[in-house]
Amino acid sequence: MKEFQLIEQFFRDKGQKRRDVHLGIGDDCALVQPAENKSIAISCDTLVENIHFLPSMPAHELGYKSVAVNLSDLAAMGADPAWMTLALTLPDVDNDWLQQFSEGLFEAAEYYSVSLIGGDTTRGPRSINITIHGQVPTGKALTRGGAKIGDWIYVTGTLGDSALGLDILLGKQDVDPQFKEFLINRHYHPTPRILAGQALRSLATSAIDLSDGLNSDIAHILKASNVGAVIDVNELPLSTSLVGSVGPEQAINYALTGGEDYELLFTVPEAQRGALDTALIHAGVKFVKIGQICAGDKLRLVSNGEPFELDLKSFEHF
Amino acid sequence: MKEFQLIEQFFRDKGQKRRDVHLGIGDDCALVQPAENKSIAISCDTLVENIHFLPSMPAHELGYKSVAVNLSDLAAMGADPAWMTLALTLPDVDNDWLQQFSEGLFEAAEYYSVSLIGGDTTRGPRSINITIHGQVPTGKALTRGGAKIGDWIYVTGTLGDSALGLDILLGKQDVDPQFKEFLINRHYHPTPRILAGQALRSLATSAIDLSDGLNSDIAHILKASNVGAVIDVNELPLSTSLVGSVGPEQAINYALTGGEDYELLFTVPEAQRGALDTALIHAGVKFVKIGQICAGDKLRLVSNGEPFELDLKSFEHF
Repeated sequence: MKEFQLIEQFFRDKGQKRRDVHLGIGDDCALVQPAENKSIAISCDTLVENIHFLPSMPAHELGYKSVAVNLSDLAAMGADPAWMTLALTLPDVDNDWLQQFSEGLFEAAEYYSVSLIGGDTTRGPRSINITIHGQVPTGKALTRGGAKIGDWIYVTGTLGDSALGLDILLGKQDVDPQFKEFLINRHYHPTPRILAGQALRSLATSAIDLSDGLNSDIAHILKASNVGAVIDVNELPLSTSLVGSVGPEQAINYALTGGEDYELLFTVPEAQRGALDTALIHAGVKFVKIGQICAGDKLRLVSNGEPFELDLKSFEHF
Repeated sequence: MKEFQLIEQFFRDKGQKRRDVHLGIGDDCALVQPAENKSIAISCDTLVENIHFLPSMPAHELGYKSVAVNLSDLAAMGADPAWMTLALTLPDVDNDWLQQFSEGLFEAAEYYSVSLIGGDTTRGPRSINITIHGQVPTGKALTRGGAKIGDWIYVTGTLGDSALGLDILLGKQDVDPQFKEFLINRHYHPTPRILAGQALRSLATSAIDLSDGLNSDIAHILKASNVGAVIDVNELPLSTSLVGSVGPEQAINYALTGGEDYELLFTVPEAQRGALDTALIHAGVKFVKIGQICAGDKLRLVSNGEPFELDLKSFEHF
């Protein structure tokens, strides 16, 4: 099948066409009209079969997740989702797979008001690359570099569920049936914290999304902000399903190193805590304080006032 | 090696940082500031080893060409190059290869004032995906859809050299040594027609870049503009090296179907021909008239007033 036909059949003129898209798929380039006084936030992520997702992952879930993980990067900047391009590499042309993949992709795109504006398909081992674009008022973007000594450290949602969900899929863990669906769903269907990111624009001093695991992701904030941090492992938000499935130490290990939570970690000064409560409760997002920024350049984990030792195993791509 | 280290070592803070880039590689997203009253042109292209390039292709040339073919899409819209993201999939971490690839990539990026603002590396069969961004005054972009009956059809540069260069590399053709380097260089080192595209903004009614071969690429203009075309195969611009290497019929075949020329094909109304001459000569770009837009929906090839029969073999990705 021709590249053109693939794109035409499954992706062109599908999904929402935003009013700021002058020209979508079908010319040499797409044309979009940026809003005034906004910066554009741009991020790209590749998902490769057997590295970032299992061959058994349902196509619909993969389509959804491919968009969601990119949206999570926009959330971490406080940006409003806008446009994306898709580069799809496939070993063969499987119409059923493509139909389900595109439905999952557009489900996420519609919900978060993203237009698919460009596509490219090539033959090869299955991988999905999305470049996503958002808009954020100039000067208001959240970055990794603004955390100050004394700021409180927060995370949204719960941590570790996705990694346990993956271990269930891999047959490494067996859990009570009542928890299984929730955990696997957290792995397949992450919730990009777009609303939280938007609400944090004028409140947080730094933010990052948790893709590799809290323990390694927070290091980026510490480095970029030139600070250290103390985190109380007993404050980590754990789901009933995680706590009900593994022992307390393993639960903390999943929460700290599991990866693929796609929750936001952010820092807020004491003076903004009241405004934070108001803003995030209004946005309907659960969040919890887990620690504080301090001097130095290291992360210290504590439990009941004592140092907490962690067996490190963070998710790395190479 | 960690993904972060790869990006850090070879791509971060390398090359030009444009003043409109607020934040480059190293956060969840890049942040760029679009100019006022401009649309953003966005395109993405994937190059996969053994499909789009030979395993023997030198890394420097591959780095250069990966950017150049994306710039060619911007040229076809009349856009000014601005920013790009790179998703690199590699079978292993080869420092020499990465060094040369990045040098080639930044050579093209510097020359055309593009900043690399985001990167992602994954392990897998070698492929390069670039999403490129340009800016064009709102309403002035060249598209495929504006060709009118009576408009003249032009192309820049010469056609067919790249395909013959590839056939030389594949051992399918053997040519006189005096032509060999030029032809292979045309395959490895295409010239994106950025200046020509900019000059055509107020002159051309439609434009496309020739990546798959004139014969199949012009069909996109005919379909989008709802017109037909007549092309005189004797007017096709052929290089001395092409004409000196193969017979006249084969030369025309290369020029019509070879692909990877990355020249511009565009249409101009009679009333703008004088302005066109002035603008493109000022831009230092060679161009030639090869035919005319007519009623209908087909491409007719003619030679000395007679229909010209072509043995079709256009480049398709699937």
